[in-house]
Amino acid sequence: MPDDRLSQQLAFLTEADRLKTVLRGTTICDASRRENSGEHSWHIALYAMVLAEHSVTPVRIDRVIRMLLIHDLVEIDAGDAPIHGDHDPREQARIEQLAADRIFGLLPPDQAHEMRALWEEFEAATSDDAVFAKSIDRVQPVISNLETGGGSWPEYNVTEDQLETRVGAKVRRGAPDVWRHLQARISAWFDASAS
Amino acid sequence: MPDDRLSQQLAFLTEADRLKTVLRGTTICDASRRENSGEHSWHIALYAMVLAEHSVTPVRIDRVIRMLLIHDLVEIDAGDAPIHGDHDPREQARIEQLAADRIFGLLPPDQAHEMRALWEEFEAATSDDAVFAKSIDRVQPVISNLETGGGSWPEYNVTEDQLETRVGAKVRRGAPDVWRHLQARISAWFDASAS
Repeated sequence: MPDDRLSQQLAFLTEADRLKTVLRGTTICDASRRENSGEHSWHIALYAMVLAEHSVTPVRIDRVIRMLLIHDLVEIDAGDAPIHGDHDPREQARIEQLAADRIFGLLPPDQAHEMRALWEEFEAATSDDAVFAKSIDRVQPVISNLETGGGSWPEYNVTEDQLETRVGAKVRRGAPDVWRHLQARISAWFDASAS
Repeated sequence: MPDDRLSQQLAFLTEADRLKTVLRGTTICDASRRENSGEHSWHIALYAMVLAEHSVTPVRIDRVIRMLLIHDLVEIDAGDAPIHGDHDPREQARIEQLAADRIFGLLPPDQAHEMRALWEEFEAATSDDAVFAKSIDRVQPVISNLETGGGSWPEYNVTEDQLETRVGAKVRRGAPDVWRHLQARISAWFDASAS
């Protein structure tokens, strides 16, 4: 029944609205408030669209964009786990799997399957598309922190080495030019904060 | 110089962050606060991805998604003009053209040209992709209003006929099934609010 199908699709889209209430560790660039995962998802889809040429391997950018549009939906149930925060990655992964069951499960079965597969691909970060998507997901909070005088780095006591290990390594895997470009600004910030 | 090119791209992406501070007439679905145009852009890109099959003509859905990701960027300078609000459409269009000059002009020339063309296509609403994109852009606030007991309709004194003319006609042009599905809920809301 087509109308049932449309009801399922709209129920999923209405549930997705809740991603706008999930707050992240970083603020928006004017530092006025914390960023939510809905607007973050928009911003990094735009990042991917603009920075596609910097991927270290050729990517199907439209798949990357779709991946980024849905990559955080599980946070509606599982919350955001800040990269510099203190959480158990295995427990977080377990909760996110349950969230994916419930949230993608609102869709008609064919679409649920397709979106779940796209999300699993992002999480596994083995395909070229997913590697680039993960890189881009890590770039935007760094820029937000640089724009807001270090942003959440002081709060989480992040060192330049930790940033290199936790963030730089992931960004360099998919978009090394972009990380190289940011390194000068990052080093300057840590030098200034240490003095 | 590749690094200059990346600097321009990142300057554009940082400027785009300001779309998260542009507030719309509608609230998010829990009615806790007004929606901003950044998270709205994410949500309708997801709407397009899920509802593509309901387009009245075949569309290139990835172009529609890219169109929706950038369609509101001009609001950084021009603000949001609520569909039920009281504004001069010619003056609004003039301000939005200036905004497009400035904002897309931050990008390297080839990307500025490409995004500007995509935005102009959306505004003109003549191509199949743009007609469907415009339909989807109109659906999401209706659902938000239905989810929040009428939302901004009472504030703007919107009648069922006005909603049909200003919103329904646009949605039906690109996605008639979706509008037909919503009409029962809309009529029920207006019947209840009149009694």
